[in-house]
Amino acid sequence: MRLANLSGRLVIVSGSKASDVEALSIGRFSSDPQAIYGEWDEFTTWARTADLTAGVPFDHHDLLAPVPRPRQIFAVGLNYQEHASEVGLVASKVPIVFTKFVSSITGPRADVPHPGGDVDWEVELVVVIGKTARNVSESDAWEHVAGLTVGQDISERITQHEGATPQFSLGKSFPGFSPMGPWLVTPDEFSDPRDIALETIVNGATRQRGRTSDMVASVATLITAMSKILELLPGDIIFTGTPSGVGLGMKPPQFLSVGDELVSRIEGIGEMRNRIVAVA
Amino acid sequence: MRLANLSGRLVIVSGSKASDVEALSIGRFSSDPQAIYGEWDEFTTWARTADLTAGVPFDHHDLLAPVPRPRQIFAVGLNYQEHASEVGLVASKVPIVFTKFVSSITGPRADVPHPGGDVDWEVELVVVIGKTARNVSESDAWEHVAGLTVGQDISERITQHEGATPQFSLGKSFPGFSPMGPWLVTPDEFSDPRDIALETIVNGATRQRGRTSDMVASVATLITAMSKILELLPGDIIFTGTPSGVGLGMKPPQFLSVGDELVSRIEGIGEMRNRIVAVA
Repeated sequence: MRLANLSGRLVIVSGSKASDVEALSIGRFSSDPQAIYGEWDEFTTWARTADLTAGVPFDHHDLLAPVPRPRQIFAVGLNYQEHASEVGLVASKVPIVFTKFVSSITGPRADVPHPGGDVDWEVELVVVIGKTARNVSESDAWEHVAGLTVGQDISERITQHEGATPQFSLGKSFPGFSPMGPWLVTPDEFSDPRDIALETIVNGATRQRGRTSDMVASVATLITAMSKILELLPGDIIFTGTPSGVGLGMKPPQFLSVGDELVSRIEGIGEMRNRIVAVA
Repeated sequence: MRLANLSGRLVIVSGSKASDVEALSIGRFSSDPQAIYGEWDEFTTWARTADLTAGVPFDHHDLLAPVPRPRQIFAVGLNYQEHASEVGLVASKVPIVFTKFVSSITGPRADVPHPGGDVDWEVELVVVIGKTARNVSESDAWEHVAGLTVGQDISERITQHEGATPQFSLGKSFPGFSPMGPWLVTPDEFSDPRDIALETIVNGATRQRGRTSDMVASVATLITAMSKILELLPGDIIFTGTPSGVGLGMKPPQFLSVGDELVSRIEGIGEMRNRIVAVA
């Protein structure tokens, strides 16, 4: 199943058509794309038998972030060995977890204002939690996943690395720095959700190309490790780290400019197309 | 004005009595302690003339976190020079900002489960945002503050410092690691809200004693700096950093154990009393 946020309303996408969840369920489920994770099991049970034949065509430019207001946003640093190496650090079995503040979330077709500084790309698989997770084993971890979507962990490198003991969250939370979309795809749609390709293309040139199977800590390992510390709540999201190929790792480093087109693509999910624009 | 969360309902505290906001306003304002920041100006205008004489006595053990579900929680590291020195680092004019994940919030009388490791105390002034702040000047910053409360930024030092480039958020987000309370106090109640005393007492021994005027970046500076990067939303909170006297800075270091009583007190606000308990 593919779930999208179409102009603020929750829809199920089937082929090129969208069905409004509130209308189709005759009000049983809300149109709020964030509310659905509070009753994920009931929703998926209903959705499996829902008749989607009356869906209507839609414009991709009306897609917004599928999970617009998570209570907790976890973002993992240095989770691919080659990426850690390219920025001069070592990957770690201990997940390096920061946040991207919720005000930075935007949609898969949104313009991203350039705030100045060194603005870099980081395509990431984003995991959406569907069921509260606390002290979960690796073998049970995927049972707590509602689905997967594409994310960009856009990062302003100067702010990210400032201070005596740099904390990454602010430099990764300028407005528009967390595009997500185009929709959430449930794990059953993948032949193997643990091994999918992801890539970033900037102005037509491929900059990042990786596979999620190269993560240092897998999705299951991340959920297990974090759920030992705290409770993952329905609708929470995890940015799972980026593969190599970021601008900071290029020789010389190369960053995004106003006018650039940033395309983020994950196999089996789809793509986002975000334009970097001047601050209004 | 003092605003509290009494068993999940928003109340105005006057002396030893509490008035239920929803009942007193005949439904004009919700009983949800988090919802009030969405209409802060309207609420304070009404509250200034509300008749609180029919308030009823209450038990402090029924007080919960006054701001239970902020959308964004900012926490500032190394914001008092003496504290930075005691942990072997330098304070910085650039605010070091991480998060405390929302699942770690608890009340001013709650038990805090000891997760193992080196559990330390950090009393902090917590600022609650009452009005959206974006690109705010220092002279306007306090206009965006709804009020102040007491917070403890409880920290498990091993998790906090793990990894190639340690990110503080997870080690400060075990369940119960963010007690807040006993209530929010509006800035007009202080003779000078920029200079108030704060302290931590562990099992009767004073461990931290400082003044908020010793912050490296003041409340106004923090709001200005963060609002240059992102939008501070109504109901967001800022843990503004801790003064010297943490357990990690003692010789030898000393940490919290099961059974310890942690008292956190800020002049003009009040105190929290949290007991460290075994994990259930």
